[in-house]
Amino acid sequence: MDSEKMGQLMVERREEVERILQEYLPAIDGLQKTVLEAMTYSVLVGGKRLRPIMMLESYRIFGGSEKVIEPFVAAIEMIHTYSLVHDDLPAMDNDRYRRGKLTTHAKYGEAMGILAGDGLLTYAFETAGAAFSMTDDPARVGRAMQVLAQKAGIYGMLGGQVIDVESEGKPGMTLEKITQIHTLKTAALMESALMIGAILAGASEDQVGQMEQIARSVGIAFQIQDDILDVTGTQEVLGKPIGSDARNEKTTYITLRGMEASVAEVKQLSEEAIGKLRQMPGDTLFLEEVVRMLTVRKK
Amino acid sequence: MDSEKMGQLMVERREEVERILQEYLPAIDGLQKTVLEAMTYSVLVGGKRLRPIMMLESYRIFGGSEKVIEPFVAAIEMIHTYSLVHDDLPAMDNDRYRRGKLTTHAKYGEAMGILAGDGLLTYAFETAGAAFSMTDDPARVGRAMQVLAQKAGIYGMLGGQVIDVESEGKPGMTLEKITQIHTLKTAALMESALMIGAILAGASEDQVGQMEQIARSVGIAFQIQDDILDVTGTQEVLGKPIGSDARNEKTTYITLRGMEASVAEVKQLSEEAIGKLRQMPGDTLFLEEVVRMLTVRKK
Repeated sequence: MDSEKMGQLMVERREEVERILQEYLPAIDGLQKTVLEAMTYSVLVGGKRLRPIMMLESYRIFGGSEKVIEPFVAAIEMIHTYSLVHDDLPAMDNDRYRRGKLTTHAKYGEAMGILAGDGLLTYAFETAGAAFSMTDDPARVGRAMQVLAQKAGIYGMLGGQVIDVESEGKPGMTLEKITQIHTLKTAALMESALMIGAILAGASEDQVGQMEQIARSVGIAFQIQDDILDVTGTQEVLGKPIGSDARNEKTTYITLRGMEASVAEVKQLSEEAIGKLRQMPGDTLFLEEVVRMLTVRKK
Repeated sequence: MDSEKMGQLMVERREEVERILQEYLPAIDGLQKTVLEAMTYSVLVGGKRLRPIMMLESYRIFGGSEKVIEPFVAAIEMIHTYSLVHDDLPAMDNDRYRRGKLTTHAKYGEAMGILAGDGLLTYAFETAGAAFSMTDDPARVGRAMQVLAQKAGIYGMLGGQVIDVESEGKPGMTLEKITQIHTLKTAALMESALMIGAILAGASEDQVGQMEQIARSVGIAFQIQDDILDVTGTQEVLGKPIGSDARNEKTTYITLRGMEASVAEVKQLSEEAIGKLRQMPGDTLFLEEVVRMLTVRKK
């Protein structure tokens, strides 16, 4: 796929996700208006919409063509957003800006930052629940909800965040621990995206498992590439300061394995993912490009 | 039902809930151990287990006798606990003690307080999701999950919390607003308890709606009674300081409607609830006693 075609497709898919988000975000009225405003602000402030795009595409390669995927598309982005809103809180990373805009707690106050995150997390399940009235196969929707909760929770994204928070500034970081953090904090929600798409389209258990492994490789490669770019990238291209890991004397995949091995690892993980994808049914070209974009990216 | 028999039944039901909680709480191990410990501490530090007891009883009066209710029994107490953990945070009520024990953030730090609350909320849905493999009616379980999310979320408990936080220390409190806060912050989760019990036991839509109304009356009466006890109770019986509303010049149901009308309102709501309960099938005696206990309580 040439890069112009890929770029155009990405724009189209992102617009599709924005439309779905607009449809499923709550209306801003009633006495609880402020939290609804803060939730909507947090979601619409921007983002690449990677997870929803991955979910939609996974659904399509397995032949899915119904509306039942849409509540889950909105739900996964709400969950991703809640995690950013809570990560930015003063007691966590204490970030006042994200993507050049005020973070939720910086704009609406700390209490509302906590509540908007809680609101998004709960509303994600409320939204996904709408899929029950859009299917004649409630067991499938139930399975999808379970995967969403599992991959977002203590054995998924949240678990990774906990290990990360607890490791910060402490010695004893190992390759095993870093890989665990990458797997849980970053890969888990991507796993749920590809798995839920497959589940709702009626893919086999084996195919759902393959999609989980693909997303795991992509998620881990994505994070190693993040560390690589912090060393080799330029602030101009990345749009954020580089060298922060070195300044913070942070143990990363690179400091433990060296640059050459890290670059090779990203390449291998990316090739593994693409190799597995090619064995899936349907047209996987766009999803292959997404994998390349995420792992061999320059920013 | 005499009070000795009632007391004994309450003890039995509470023990049943404790057993279910023990079974469904996550094991404390792995790299994310601290959050698992904080989550377990928060749930097991105590509580009356009112919502799970109400759910179990509602399930039984509609003839339910399967294990499928248990994941939901555990889930609703996790959601109730998460709401307390986040309410206690420094940016919210900033409470260091609850029921004579350190609150979660006071014991594990603020970051872990936020994460433990998030963990409990997510794990509640993960736990409830286990019910899909315990039923041959996934649509029923799906409906129950939706009710749980709705009643916990921005149009339920969380919405009430937002309105409460935003009203604090500001003039303009009205009877309508107070009732809205009571309905959402307190009644909504009780509504989900009685509704989910009924739904999983296969009650009719009309019966589910009746149970929702019963819980709403009970929740509102419970909160007005709380305000009444703050005026008429004694610290000795309540186990907490009285007169805090007056000291904080807080506008309550009592200050707006007067003591006599408030007492009459509690009585009326309680009688309405009991009247409706008696029209439900099965043996509703214990649930009637629970309603009396919650509304005509002295502590």
